[in-house]
Amino acid sequence: MTSPAFTGSRPLGVAAIGYAFMGQAHSHAWRTVATHFDVPAFEQKVLVGRDAAAVAAAATKYGWSESATDWRQVIARDDIDIVDICAPGWLHAEIATAALAAGKHVLVEKPLANSLAEAELMVAAARSARLAGVRSMVGFNYRRIPALTLARQLIAAGELGTVRQVRASYLQDWLADAQEPMTWRLRKETAGSGALGDIASHAIDQVQHLLGDAVTEVSGKLHTFTTERQGPNGLEQVSVDDAAWATLSMAGGAVASVDVSRVALGQKNALRIEVYGTDGALTFNLENPNELHFLNAHDPIQVQGFRRILVTEPEHPYIAGWWPQGHVIGWEHSFTHQIHDFLHNIADGTDPSPSFEEGLAVQHVLAAVEASAAAAGKTVAVPLSAPIRESISTPKD
Amino acid sequence: MTSPAFTGSRPLGVAAIGYAFMGQAHSHAWRTVATHFDVPAFEQKVLVGRDAAAVAAAATKYGWSESATDWRQVIARDDIDIVDICAPGWLHAEIATAALAAGKHVLVEKPLANSLAEAELMVAAARSARLAGVRSMVGFNYRRIPALTLARQLIAAGELGTVRQVRASYLQDWLADAQEPMTWRLRKETAGSGALGDIASHAIDQVQHLLGDAVTEVSGKLHTFTTERQGPNGLEQVSVDDAAWATLSMAGGAVASVDVSRVALGQKNALRIEVYGTDGALTFNLENPNELHFLNAHDPIQVQGFRRILVTEPEHPYIAGWWPQGHVIGWEHSFTHQIHDFLHNIADGTDPSPSFEEGLAVQHVLAAVEASAAAAGKTVAVPLSAPIRESISTPKD
Amino acid sequence: MTSPAFTGSRPLGVAAIGYAFMGQAHSHAWRTVATHFDVPAFEQKVLVGRDAAAVAAAATKYGWSESATDWRQVIARDDIDIVDICAPGWLHAEIATAALAAGKHVLVEKPLANSLAEAELMVAAARSARLAGVRSMVGFNYRRIPALTLARQLIAAGELGTVRQVRASYLQDWLADAQEPMTWRLRKETAGSGALGDIASHAIDQVQHLLGDAVTEVSGKLHTFTTERQGPNGLEQVSVDDAAWATLSMAGGAVASVDVSRVALGQKNALRIEVYGTDGALTFNLENPNELHFLNAHDPIQVQGFRRILVTEPEHPYIAGWWPQGHVIGWEHSFTHQIHDFLHNIADGTDPSPSFEEGLAVQHVLAAVEASAAAAGKTVAVPLSAPIRESISTPKD
Amino acid sequence: MTSPAFTGSRPLGVAAIGYAFMGQAHSHAWRTVATHFDVPAFEQKVLVGRDAAAVAAAATKYGWSESATDWRQVIARDDIDIVDICAPGWLHAEIATAALAAGKHVLVEKPLANSLAEAELMVAAARSARLAGVRSMVGFNYRRIPALTLARQLIAAGELGTVRQVRASYLQDWLADAQEPMTWRLRKETAGSGALGDIASHAIDQVQHLLGDAVTEVSGKLHTFTTERQGPNGLEQVSVDDAAWATLSMAGGAVASVDVSRVALGQKNALRIEVYGTDGALTFNLENPNELHFLNAHDPIQVQGFRRILVTEPEHPYIAGWWPQGHVIGWEHSFTHQIHDFLHNIADGTDPSPSFEEGLAVQHVLAAVEASAAAAGKTVAVPLSAPIRESISTPKD
Repeated sequence: MTSPAFTGSRPLGVAAIGYAFMGQAHSHAWRTVATHFDVPAFEQKVLVGRDAAAVAAAATKYGWSESATDWRQVIARDDIDIVDICAPGWLHAEIATAALAAGKHVLVEKPLANSLAEAELMVAAARSARLAGVRSMVGFNYRRIPALTLARQLIAAGELGTVRQVRASYLQDWLADAQEPMTWRLRKETAGSGALGDIASHAIDQVQHLLGDAVTEVSGKLHTFTTERQGPNGLEQVSVDDAAWATLSMAGGAVASVDVSRVALGQKNALRIEVYGTDGALTFNLENPNELHFLNAHDPIQVQGFRRILVTEPEHPYIAGWWPQGHVIGWEHSFTHQIHDFLHNIADGTDPSPSFEEGLAVQHVLAAVEASAAAAGKTVAVPLSAPIRESISTPKD
Repeated sequence: MTSPAFTGSRPLGVAAIGYAFMGQAHSHAWRTVATHFDVPAFEQKVLVGRDAAAVAAAATKYGWSESATDWRQVIARDDIDIVDICAPGWLHAEIATAALAAGKHVLVEKPLANSLAEAELMVAAARSARLAGVRSMVGFNYRRIPALTLARQLIAAGELGTVRQVRASYLQDWLADAQEPMTWRLRKETAGSGALGDIASHAIDQVQHLLGDAVTEVSGKLHTFTTERQGPNGLEQVSVDDAAWATLSMAGGAVASVDVSRVALGQKNALRIEVYGTDGALTFNLENPNELHFLNAHDPIQVQGFRRILVTEPEHPYIAGWWPQGHVIGWEHSFTHQIHDFLHNIADGTDPSPSFEEGLAVQHVLAAVEASAAAAGKTVAVPLSAPIRESISTPKD
Repeated sequence: MTSPAFTGSRPLGVAAIGYAFMGQAHSHAWRTVATHFDVPAFEQKVLVGRDAAAVAAAATKYGWSESATDWRQVIARDDIDIVDICAPGWLHAEIATAALAAGKHVLVEKPLANSLAEAELMVAAARSARLAGVRSMVGFNYRRIPALTLARQLIAAGELGTVRQVRASYLQDWLADAQEPMTWRLRKETAGSGALGDIASHAIDQVQHLLGDAVTEVSGKLHTFTTERQGPNGLEQVSVDDAAWATLSMAGGAVASVDVSRVALGQKNALRIEVYGTDGALTFNLENPNELHFLNAHDPIQVQGFRRILVTEPEHPYIAGWWPQGHVIGWEHSFTHQIHDFLHNIADGTDPSPSFEEGLAVQHVLAAVEASAAAAGKTVAVPLSAPIRESISTPKD
Repeated sequence: MTSPAFTGSRPLGVAAIGYAFMGQAHSHAWRTVATHFDVPAFEQKVLVGRDAAAVAAAATKYGWSESATDWRQVIARDDIDIVDICAPGWLHAEIATAALAAGKHVLVEKPLANSLAEAELMVAAARSARLAGVRSMVGFNYRRIPALTLARQLIAAGELGTVRQVRASYLQDWLADAQEPMTWRLRKETAGSGALGDIASHAIDQVQHLLGDAVTEVSGKLHTFTTERQGPNGLEQVSVDDAAWATLSMAGGAVASVDVSRVALGQKNALRIEVYGTDGALTFNLENPNELHFLNAHDPIQVQGFRRILVTEPEHPYIAGWWPQGHVIGWEHSFTHQIHDFLHNIADGTDPSPSFEEGLAVQHVLAAVEASAAAAGKTVAVPLSAPIRESISTPKD
């Protein structure tokens, strides 16, 4: 293993792998972050993809100095300090472990991996690297939506008292049309799972993160409404779920429900979270991400109600870098804030959150949902190791 | 003049005049009030209308013991103590002055009258009658929507600090269709005015009532979008306004805007009120009348926002008579509460509010809006006499 | 058994049993229905309760001619044709079967009974009585909220295509305060269950009714957050659930989730229903009961979105009896509409819906949720007999 | 005058003048536009400001190659083709006319100028330059919020029929605190006007743009609630308005109301627009800029209502450059779209909109509002020249 990157003597060199949806979102964040925030110096050096012409065009468009097709060569370069992995899930483990072994700081898109086994390999690699000062982070970017960061702060500060219930759902409709064709996202071997891994992973990470608490038991159900879709060579079997439902028991006594769907007609990107405590409550909807609704049960009953907080004040998380109050920011800036924090972790020598352990914890819950669903809904324990449980419940901020 | 009604020795005898929309709404309130509230004993004795058969049928349906066609005979009856006038505006002055002269307590629908001259006659009659213990009230029922009663309480208690601005609008769309036929409501000689008298009167009463302050100056504009409509004998000229706009200067320094329309497509009954003070703010919409939105500027900025108060707690005005929290009540119960308060005023020997003076004050503002509109928007003073001004600004509750 | 009531020769005589919350709500409906709708003639004859003085006072207040303390005597009276049972659940079976046996039409509050065994007795009694022309109905009043009646019509008319998912929740917060004292509603022996029977029953009835489809399998979970509460003689064990979660598989292939809570701080009476089909979607919230949100997937994508329908047009169900458009009605009028329909069923000799069979079907689902919860969430089949299943899926309107 | 810039042989050289709020917003747009859209090649060459050190730091942060302090030298450079003026309003005329005379394409922030006289000079310069192929645009960026662009398209396509009424308001609260200190924005000599020029200008531009119609007459009112504020040397007189109200008559017969405020407590950036036509209606709120609400009066009345359109579909204006459906974008991207269109206008040799003439038309309306306010609200005609009127009513898209 080489020595950890970033001595401060030169800008951090960044390579990103992947230039599809997530690659574009991450590139936008790299391109934007320094315009709005003070961050350690860095350079967008290389964008990596399989198709040489396409990745070259994308590199130009997204502001990368170079493009490349072989990620192994790139992570071997001395001028690369950070590897940002936006490739599909089945490549995460291989690239991340190699990059960490090469002493590169690694940011990897969520979910951490397509299988528990891969995720555990990645955690092991991250732990070794951490000893050498190499940082790693998994991209549950919604933690850095200011309204959700504020939610976390309010809960951690005790504004809700003891949390009893969480209701989290993530509803989309891009598969509502049964004529929508087959894609790699609908095959278990490439995608791992369907709505469960793709969007329930976000919801589950939020539940654990907001409460600073770990899921201990799960009852789950999966369902595929359209079981065959047209592929290039005729009808193919859809082997992942369109929708998933779960109830989660938390170590601290709270109960959370999570349900997700890709066929909820009219819901476009509705990650909705409701948290009910003994002293307060919160609600949030990602389709309107600049708002958090907060109820303080200590307000006099005559004037008690959910407050619509427009999370755009300079006093709100991350907002000082943006515009004056009331000028809302978009979905994409959760990635900008993620990179902001990751860069500061690297410069400060602190550990990023969500860590790979936290990513693994989500994988364990996903696996338990699948196991419970396979057992007709029977409750399944989530076998979290002590260190992983600790990684969730230790306040990070 | 006979002696004032209600000695307590027998139930109060009630007569209602009119059985159209407002007659039905008032009848419903008379029929409902004692089921939900402790009120002085009363009897629904007579319903009065011009068409003998129709009013007889309505009387049965609405729970009145008898029907009659001659209101003069009815107000002469010894067993009638209260006259509830739901007849069209052009009849208000004649009936109300006669009933008051006969010593009957009078509740009259808003607006008080179709002209200032009539309204002044009515005020004079109410003042004389008051000396004899006879009560009178004008039916600005929206004051008794619990959310608006709460709004008044919050402002009176100083929760908003000094009010600077009010934005009031009342939008409907029942005339949006240019094919909608001519009616008496669209002729100046029968209706007095259009949207101005019908719905701006509500908005203006709210502005004055919520602030406990009088309008001193007005700039206004009236407009008719569909100038001819089909009557039974061909096209007729519409002689009233479809929409009206005004800015109102209040004695205390606040500025209010009022705009109303009957052609605001898709808005069904949207009386919206926003009040902005130095320390707080309120918003309300009659299409969702069980909610009041309140912002307290002394909340910490991180968690400041409009609170959606569901005004259905037992601690809220009038709600103890209704259902458990969260079980919303309808538009019609503003009439129930109005009758509740009117009955208690009669029993307690106290003066109801809104008084005829308050009704007259609204008429003065309406007249000033018309005058300003006729003068191309030039600001016009509202010539409120001292007693009327006082009747507005004296807190009633 | 006597001959069926109502020959049309005299008004139907009505007796109501119970004068607490539900008794007041039903009384209000009886008192209001004829003011707004054409209904067969009836008389509010007797209100029955255990405390003679209290029930006499309530009878006067709610418009009943008499009061009584012995329901057996009342159902034996020849002048009583209808028995409206608003007593607690543990009395439903005894009173309903006796009243039906006496040839009285019976309306009974939901849920049908506290146990499956009782519910089955009641269904048997209703079936026998039906042969003799005696009508019976269980009071799932939310079916008659105009917005939900409209929802049912739209689904039945195919406007949503094939329904895939339903999300139903019913959130309240009246037990959020752990200091709230013990009541009979929190003991299993008196209440049967907690949030499950009280409010999940409404949600489950809606799921089955809206889809015209029966639940076949259930996975469920129950939880009590505050396990002890202060009673008159010290701390007592709470033996019912505070919250419940379930996933329901429907015979037609849809999947529904239901979750309910009495500790969802800030949610006062939030029965929320979302229905997602292949061609459209609907959402509803009981805290704003005059609105239905409808998405038509055949609208051009540029202008597609949930339509906020203010269900107050004369063309909407039941609204012709009420006010002009935009003048919203309250929660309580679901009872008024229920009585309207029940009276017409009696007069027309048609069978009311929801029938006791439909009430039993809900009980079966509730029992299955309890069984699944007791088996750690394992899926449990709902053993619906063919006739009951048919009673659900046969369109009633 | 030099020949018009951009022959296509090299990237367009861009200079921006000003690096405060608007400078940052424009810089962000220049930095982002090519990442998301295909645009003619350009380079962020120079950022200009008065403070050498500060502007150098800003240039680095915002992605400009160089910084400079003398705008005259910059516009004289051969490698600069585009001048983007983000300096305060009192500098617009001088810089813009000089830049246009130098053959540079000019984008200038709104409002066009602080006075009518300056605005007319600018229009004259733009007209001369246009003959030489030099483009000019005024930055009413809200036209490029996708939801408002869609609104314009729907109105232009006749989806609303004939527009009768527009209700536009722009409410902020950053001056609600009377302790907020004096700034240049509150002095007439530097700011021109207060809320009127700053935010009513946006509202008025929207009214004219959405309807493709010109204001002909105006009645207005201005008010300052806090007349003195603390400056560095003690209390100073506030010489601009805190709030403004106006009614606008449109050439085509519609009536619009506009009201704006900086003291509407709790409203952060609420530009709300409602448009009511004979066949449809639209509503919008800038605090939730990804939504447009549209009512189609031809929908069956039972299912008619405002549709909440989440304007994030690839079929919506500008969205194809961004994220998948439901992933909302922020306020700032209205600037990105503005630059996108401006660059294409330059490359295509077409005239940008809003043109300086359109900017002048807004100035004329603002001046008329001031004149009317000075005349106690009396209606004042807006003296639009034929070419300017034409520039508004000619559909641009």
